[in-house]
Parts: sequence; structure tokens; C-alpha cells
Amino acid sequence: MPIIYFNGKFLEQAEAALDPLDRGVTLGDGLFETIRCEEGQLIFHVAHLARLARGARLLEIPWNLTSEEFLAICHQVLDANDLKMARLRVTLTRGEPSNSPEIGAPQTAPPLVINAQALDQSALNAARERGWSAHLVDFPRNHRSPLAQIKSTSYQECLLARQQARRKGADEGILLNTDGRLAEGAMSNLFIVRKGNVYTPPVADGALPGIVRLKVGLLCARQCINHEEKSLTIDDLRTADEIFMTNSIIEIMPVVRLGDDLIGNGKPGSATQAIHGFHRRDVGDYLGMMRTG
Amino acid sequence: MPIIYFNGKFLEQAEAALDPLDRGVTLGDGLFETIRCEEGQLIFHVAHLARLARGARLLEIPWNLTSEEFLAICHQVLDANDLKMARLRVTLTRGEPSNSPEIGAPQTAPPLVINAQALDQSALNAARERGWSAHLVDFPRNHRSPLAQIKSTSYQECLLARQQARRKGADEGILLNTDGRLAEGAMSNLFIVRKGNVYTPPVADGALPGIVRLKVGLLCARQCINHEEKSLTIDDLRTADEIFMTNSIIEIMPVVRLGDDLIGNGKPGSATQAIHGFHRRDVGDYLGMMRTG
Repeated sequence: MPIIYFNGKFLEQAEAALDPLDRGVTLGDGLFETIRCEEGQLIFHVAHLARLARGARLLEIPWNLTSEEFLAICHQVLDANDLKMARLRVTLTRGEPSNSPEIGAPQTAPPLVINAQALDQSALNAARERGWSAHLVDFPRNHRSPLAQIKSTSYQECLLARQQARRKGADEGILLNTDGRLAEGAMSNLFIVRKGNVYTPPVADGALPGIVRLKVGLLCARQCINHEEKSLTIDDLRTADEIFMTNSIIEIMPVVRLGDDLIGNGKPGSATQAIHGFHRRDVGDYLGMMRTG
Repeated sequence: MPIIYFNGKFLEQAEAALDPLDRGVTLGDGLFETIRCEEGQLIFHVAHLARLARGARLLEIPWNLTSEEFLAICHQVLDANDLKMARLRVTLTRGEPSNSPEIGAPQTAPPLVINAQALDQSALNAARERGWSAHLVDFPRNHRSPLAQIKSTSYQECLLARQQARRKGADEGILLNTDGRLAEGAMSNLFIVRKGNVYTPPVADGALPGIVRLKVGLLCARQCINHEEKSLTIDDLRTADEIFMTNSIIEIMPVVRLGDDLIGNGKPGSATQAIHGFHRRDVGDYLGMMRTG
């Protein structure tokens, strides 16, 4: 039975009791982060914390943990479950058990849950060698929703997009925004490579401000690869030399098939592989600093 | 301390313990209904149950309660809390504690919560005499999202729409859809009256298939009032003789102000009041049947 952090305590999951009328349950009124952990370290936790704090400000949910306090809790969760390579989930709700339609600032400490599970890196590596297939989802993402910019626990639409992709035999869904431009994946950001240039939809088109997404931009800049945030169309996708998708768990994942069509030669592309290599070198450097730090 | 129904038991709310990793919490993966109760009876429960069952089918969450079993539970919740005039909330999640992005059919009985609170009918009546003010929300509703047709607990966008209206001093928000046509209120359906005709946006434009919404159509048919579901624009709203909004709790609520503009003469309109009267007569008939039945 896993040990989780819940409202100030470390508990067996079965002992953790959330009020079933918590606004996180009744109204999806919460935020989350999913953080990759290696060697028991949270990769790029500063960026995750910054995004969580930004979402909490937008939703006016108090978030008072310092980075040190947060890290101490996370490390204790990892240690208690004897996890080194893990996906760590932070879930913060507004609390305030009610189903009132009005949002008020919480009067009590909002429920915070931190849990971790083993991350099957070898399965991810195998998928990366093979490359993902993607499916163009038949409903769009609303890039003008305030939820497009935060990791809201009101996540059911993303689940349905992913499910639709799975039912078409694909690994991930790709969504247009409501104006017909490319937005992102069901649970990932989207990139295309053409003639050595790397393009990704801007946040204004409905791309969640992903942490690996931002990282790819920095990597390209450092390697003098042309990288642009720009509006993209289905045609850009179909005619791309390479496609890849990113999030903190999959990191940089090549897409080799879109529906029935091969992308490029149907094998993971060289630019994608190079960018993944740069990213992994940075993760290695980060872990090295953590070991000596 | 209120008594709630939770997973087969009637409990004090403080004793009810939901796993904080329930998918209803981590991913907003659930459904709800809000049902008006008078004289201890659930008003039009058949329609609420049908919508809940339809949502559960769409999401592949098992829903096995018969109408009789469901009513028996609800009546026990009302009785235990000594409530006659109440808003009753049904919340059904997928359960399956996990934050996996994949949707699978639940392997265990999905958590079901039924709770009730007193309904302040005199406050609603006072609001109805005065009429609501509405605010045009500055972000649109995605009428093409699969969530537009169900009462998903991924409800945070609706909360933010309502909050924006409140901050502008209004009672409710009105949302356009992502194609610029009128969709609905943040938490209600929208109607306009012009020259004795009653218009409401079609479900295809992003109107939740509301139960009072459907009821208004039937009432109009019975009274030979012309009623049409048709696409509406902001101009239709601004030039309406009357506007009203509906849901199971507010029933039929006149809107007398849109932003800084008065609608009609700034007083609840006669057609709105008549339709409310017809609706209340039906509720009275329904309650009469329940008393004798």
C-alpha cells in the first residue's frame, strides 16, 4: 500500500480521507502537476512549482509552501515508497466542501495530496525507439478558455481526447483549437520539424505552457537551431519532416504516424533524436548538480 | 452535521472518506445532477436520472440504480436532514484511484455521493421579483467539446465564468460559443423573448440540455406560444424584449439588465412571468400527484 502525503501527514493511501463534498470532487476545482523523478530527485521542480503557484494565484487558492518545504515533502514520499525513478503527482484542490457555484477564497488550508508511482522508463524508451502514432481528435480545444493556461483538475476533456486516440489505435491525440489551428496533444505539447526548423503552436493558440516545451525552445536556441512559436495548420502537420510531442513524463517523443499516414520515412527523425539527446544531457547535468549540491 | 449518502451508507459528512486519489479528484472524471426538492419530493427526477444515465453511458461509468432505489436513497437523505425544500446534489465519479490519463471501465463500484441542503426559496423569489443582471463573459464556451452535453464534474470553467460575472456586479454570466453565437449562462440556460416569440440556443450551439429548458419548450407548445431553438447573436440579446435564464434551482429567472443596459423597461417581463407561472402550476400538479400517488 503506497504512502502518500495528505494535508500535512504521511499516510497509507487507504487511511487518507478526503471529504467527498470537497470542491475538488464536486466541481473539479483544483490544480495539479506531474513531475518526473530520477535518482530520487525532482527534475526541474522549480518550473513545476512556478506553474503551480501561477495557477493557484489565478484561481485564488492559497499556496504557501516554500520550495524547500515542498521538496522535503516530496523526498519523504519518494523515500517512504522506496522510489527513485518515479512520476510524482501534486494535487491541490480548493477544499471548502460545498457544491456552491460561487468561488470564494478558501477559509481553511486547501487539501494537498502528493503521491508517487514507479515510472517504467524502459517502456518509454521502447516507445521512443518505435515512435508514437497520433490521431487527429474530432473535437477542438478551446484556446480562449482560462483553463487552457493552467493544469486544472477539470481534466475530463483531455481524458476523452486521449481515449478517442486509443480507440483509433493511436498513442496520443492531437487537437486543433476552436479556430482550426493546431493546439497541442491531449496530454502533451506538439512540435513539428521542417527543413531543420522547429515549430510549435503558441500558448495563444491553446498550447499549455509545458515545461519540456519551454525547455525545447531553450535547447534549440543554445544549439542555434531555428525555433519558432507560430500558428500551425493540419497541412503543416501532414507535410512535416518530423513531429514530436513533449511532456514531463514522455520527455521528447517522436511521432512517426498520423492516422494512416507515415510522417517522414515512418521512423523517429534525426532532429527529434538530437533534441532528445540534448535534453537528456541537461537532465544528466541537473542530476549531477543535485548529487554534488 | 449533515447526513449524506456515500457508497451505500448514510453517514455524517465528517465520517465520509473518499480516497484523495479518486479519479473524481485527480482528473475531474465524474458527473453530477442538482435536483430541486419541494415537500420532500424530487421535482422531475425522471428527467434528471435520464440525463445522469446518458452521461454515465457516454463516460462508461456504471450506473445501475433503478429509479426506485435512487428515490429511496434521496428520500432517506432528505428525511435524515429534515429537509423538505432543498437542493439535492448527486455526484458520481469514476473511482479507480489513479491519475492515469487512460480511461478504463471501473473495476469497482464508482463512488456515489448524494447530499442535500436547504433551499432558500424566499431569496430566489425576491431575486425573481427584482430580476437578474447578466454579464457577457469575455471567454467563450466550446460547444464542440463532448463535455458541452453532459454535467461533468470538470466544472471549473463554469465557476470562472460565474466569478467573472460576480466581479462585474452581475448575478450570472452569459457565454458565447467559440463561433460567436450565444450558448448559455455560466450555470443556466438562456432564453430571449421577442414579439411574443420565445427563442433559445440549440444544443448544437453549446446549450446544456437543461431540464427546465426542455420544460419551457413543452410549456410554450401547450400554450401555443411560438418557441424555437435557433442560433442567436449578441444583437438578439441586446434587442430582446425579455431575457430569462433557467435551471432546476432558479427555475425561470428574468434578466432585466445586461451589463449597463436595461432589457425592455428594466423590469421582469410579462412573458417570462407567465411562463414561470405555467411552470409553477406544473410543479404544483406534480407535487399533487406525488401526494396522492
